[in-house]
Amino acid sequence: MEKRARVLIDCEDAKGLVYKISKVFYDRGLNIDNNREFVDKEHGRFFMRTVVSGLFEIEELLESLQSTTPVDAHIRVIEPQDKKIVLMVTKESHALGDILIRHADGELGAQIECVIGNHNTLKALVRRFDIPFFHIPAEEMQREEHERHVMKIINEFEFDYIVLAKYMRILTPLFVKAYPQKIINIHHSFLPAFIGANPYKQAFERGVKIIGATAHFVTDDLDEGPIIAQDVIPVNHRLSWKDMQRAGRDGEKIVLSRALALVLNDRVFVNGNKTVIF
Amino acid sequence: MEKRARVLIDCEDAKGLVYKISKVFYDRGLNIDNNREFVDKEHGRFFMRTVVSGLFEIEELLESLQSTTPVDAHIRVIEPQDKKIVLMVTKESHALGDILIRHADGELGAQIECVIGNHNTLKALVRRFDIPFFHIPAEEMQREEHERHVMKIINEFEFDYIVLAKYMRILTPLFVKAYPQKIINIHHSFLPAFIGANPYKQAFERGVKIIGATAHFVTDDLDEGPIIAQDVIPVNHRLSWKDMQRAGRDGEKIVLSRALALVLNDRVFVNGNKTVIF
Amino acid sequence: MEKRARVLIDCEDAKGLVYKISKVFYDRGLNIDNNREFVDKEHGRFFMRTVVSGLFEIEELLESLQSTTPVDAHIRVIEPQDKKIVLMVTKESHALGDILIRHADGELGAQIECVIGNHNTLKALVRRFDIPFFHIPAEEMQREEHERHVMKIINEFEFDYIVLAKYMRILTPLFVKAYPQKIINIHHSFLPAFIGANPYKQAFERGVKIIGATAHFVTDDLDEGPIIAQDVIPVNHRLSWKDMQRAGRDGEKIVLSRALALVLNDRVFVNGNKTVIF
Amino acid sequence: MEKRARVLIDCEDAKGLVYKISKVFYDRGLNIDNNREFVDKEHGRFFMRTVVSGLFEIEELLESLQSTTPVDAHIRVIEPQDKKIVLMVTKESHALGDILIRHADGELGAQIECVIGNHNTLKALVRRFDIPFFHIPAEEMQREEHERHVMKIINEFEFDYIVLAKYMRILTPLFVKAYPQKIINIHHSFLPAFIGANPYKQAFERGVKIIGATAHFVTDDLDEGPIIAQDVIPVNHRLSWKDMQRAGRDGEKIVLSRALALVLNDRVFVNGNKTVIF
Repeated sequence: MEKRARVLIDCEDAKGLVYKISKVFYDRGLNIDNNREFVDKEHGRFFMRTVVSGLFEIEELLESLQSTTPVDAHIRVIEPQDKKIVLMVTKESHALGDILIRHADGELGAQIECVIGNHNTLKALVRRFDIPFFHIPAEEMQREEHERHVMKIINEFEFDYIVLAKYMRILTPLFVKAYPQKIINIHHSFLPAFIGANPYKQAFERGVKIIGATAHFVTDDLDEGPIIAQDVIPVNHRLSWKDMQRAGRDGEKIVLSRALALVLNDRVFVNGNKTVIF
Repeated sequence: MEKRARVLIDCEDAKGLVYKISKVFYDRGLNIDNNREFVDKEHGRFFMRTVVSGLFEIEELLESLQSTTPVDAHIRVIEPQDKKIVLMVTKESHALGDILIRHADGELGAQIECVIGNHNTLKALVRRFDIPFFHIPAEEMQREEHERHVMKIINEFEFDYIVLAKYMRILTPLFVKAYPQKIINIHHSFLPAFIGANPYKQAFERGVKIIGATAHFVTDDLDEGPIIAQDVIPVNHRLSWKDMQRAGRDGEKIVLSRALALVLNDRVFVNGNKTVIF
Repeated sequence: MEKRARVLIDCEDAKGLVYKISKVFYDRGLNIDNNREFVDKEHGRFFMRTVVSGLFEIEELLESLQSTTPVDAHIRVIEPQDKKIVLMVTKESHALGDILIRHADGELGAQIECVIGNHNTLKALVRRFDIPFFHIPAEEMQREEHERHVMKIINEFEFDYIVLAKYMRILTPLFVKAYPQKIINIHHSFLPAFIGANPYKQAFERGVKIIGATAHFVTDDLDEGPIIAQDVIPVNHRLSWKDMQRAGRDGEKIVLSRALALVLNDRVFVNGNKTVIF
Repeated sequence: MEKRARVLIDCEDAKGLVYKISKVFYDRGLNIDNNREFVDKEHGRFFMRTVVSGLFEIEELLESLQSTTPVDAHIRVIEPQDKKIVLMVTKESHALGDILIRHADGELGAQIECVIGNHNTLKALVRRFDIPFFHIPAEEMQREEHERHVMKIINEFEFDYIVLAKYMRILTPLFVKAYPQKIINIHHSFLPAFIGANPYKQAFERGVKIIGATAHFVTDDLDEGPIIAQDVIPVNHRLSWKDMQRAGRDGEKIVLSRALALVLNDRVFVNGNKTVIF
């Protein structure tokens, strides 16, 4: 049956890769609807994302591509369909709300399995959209214990990504390692400026003229994971740090939603501590 | 001898083009240093820009590519080297100056053959850089007659592009047709807003909150040619139209220089009245 | 009792206005928490917005300011409190949704009295937020008749502003005149580029490299009212017009919400066909 | 004689300052052409910049303002006229070139007294503009010794500001202290991200999606002085750090020139480690 798939290939660079890969598509009579490649010359790494359509079997296509590319090749053939995500939040509604509205509109490209909050604040909002909300309070608890409770909920769901929509707690390495390249965070500064707590206050005190937001994959190193998207907003001396925080929210939610759309459309490769985005 | 070339292909879309073209490179053992493609689905048109390196003859490569691609294919194999340009100016120095500084620095990627001004104002500046300046006054003259004088100078030079660096006169269709896809203009508005004379005054009167600049190829239709680059600058009620003009100059010169760099690096395809930029 | 008010003055320019107005505040021992002025020199018009706090009676303050300023002065003394708004929508949820989330969060600075749609599409979303939704279909009806139905609903509410959150119908002069300087619209282009229907399609066909959105007061002239806020988004040849539409939505909703915040905070003066924004 | 002056006042905040200051202007029959105020509530500090015109003596006006404002008031009455600047450079021409072109055009608002380079590279460019260039090599010399040579040259000139137009050496506290609030630097990153050496390489390695430039006053703490202006440029995975450096140059020169224009127009107050800009 005619179908369409996204082919993502990530391997050691070698001569003739574009030729060999496009030959696999050509031999099967597939259409290339979209094709982008990139070679990271510093690390000798090849990245390719091709949208193909036609008559093919995913397994067979995957095997042919595997036998054609270097042995280390990481190849995915993905049929476009809604992914599944889990959201984690604290008290602020803007990033969550932006995702909920897109979800209600059918524009998100993902099913929201549930929302987990370490506070109860956003329960009412989430319930308005008929999505399960779990309140896992963190008070009087070790970080590890709280995360065990969270993971117990999370692991009851099948999901592709965990989205931290202004989840204001630091995750332990244990948690992060359990979901490699699956946790997406929005940091409320133009990283690597103002790493850590209260970046708007830091920005205010430094007297910067531009503030920003950064969506990134979460890794062990706090605020140091591969950056997916960033944006900035001009500010001036008239804004208090609370004003900056307010002004920054629009940037945060848009950057997170933009990063999420890229990830859900399989447009993002992780390349060491960076991303390649097609 | 090992060399490097930019291969630009522009043809009717057909199945297998990436495969067939990359096979030509593969069969000759060429390295693909950079590769980008685009299919304009609306018009069924295929665009590809590949930087290859290795041992090859330009003529032979061109012939092989011709025989592999649809008959209408427009194929160029270009060795990277400085292009040649002619500048046309009136009185304002900012766009010209930006190009002169890059030229003096060796950063422009082009040799400036000469500067032609319909006023004498910028002669002193141009002479500081030891570049020929021709003053062709337009007073008491038909437009056609003035252009004949200009063309007489221009045609004494070999050049790849004519750059209108704030040349404030309208060109006749005769002039434009003589240099198809070779004339680049900077228009001092965010086209298609404020077509025509004094766009800053128009912007001031309309009370816009953002002004812009547009670099485009010149065609018969005034301010309607294919857009290469655009940028914007925020403004507010405190700016007079003279202030807007002043503020806009930085945008104008940067947009023109950016467009020029794209064109000189053979990154721009003209596609009907639009551009494809890699 | 200690209170705080926004004083907005708009009058013919005259020497000594800042002195005379600040004397009124000084004589009453009021604090100036914030103060901004602007003189439109072209039209000889003075604008001032001052936030004062202290012990005062609004009526008495207003009278003193009136007697101190030119006779044509338009003076408002406004105690900060939530305004009331009515929303009008068609089918798209992004601009509406952004406002609903801010409303649910208490961040909007306005009470949403009701939402009126010419289609039923957004009823479910609005109902999630316990806000009245009125479906006034426009099929098989003269424009005037439809508007009579809309106005009948609107006029049952007290409100400060009507917000067109992607209301895709043109309003008649009759409707517009009924609510002068009270109707705020988001236009999905960087006005004055692409006035009229389907600006994204127009933008796509023109091949622009930047698209935009414009929030403005609605006047008789379609898409010609005073501009409150604008923003832009870079695009390229890879985007179809549907892609541009999708990409543009984030800009639209943010620009509308930003304009709305300015208006609700009494930061916007209408000055002829322009705005002065403090 | 009718004249025009910029009045800059910076003092402890107190009730009635706008009234008292505007009374001084009013009593003398002066026109207020432009007026802006700001209160830093955190530090209880008042800033005001007024452009007045009319008949007045600078000394007399200054005394009246002094007797009206708190004792700590720092008051300047400045007649608009070209300032004088000294430039310091190393090898890169873009920031210097941008200033030279504005200077040649009469647009800079300052007289360039001389250019000092620790390399000889830019001598030819500077000489094209008939401006003195001093080459003070730093090789085989202690930092302090080199700076003594530089200061010897500098101190032969009268000047208002020293502009570091990509001067790639760190200044000692001794040098910095000799010219308080008089040294303006352009740093090639979006401070406080990437403080220190080779910020583009740092940005490349971190995989950011936006790079920037920052103009600031130089203080003892490297890259920590009050920020005057910042701007950003989007980048992506396809840029090497050399590409980022090239792309960043336009931002650097525009930000430096914009900061310089603000300073030369007396629009910048230093407020602790921040700026207030009108």
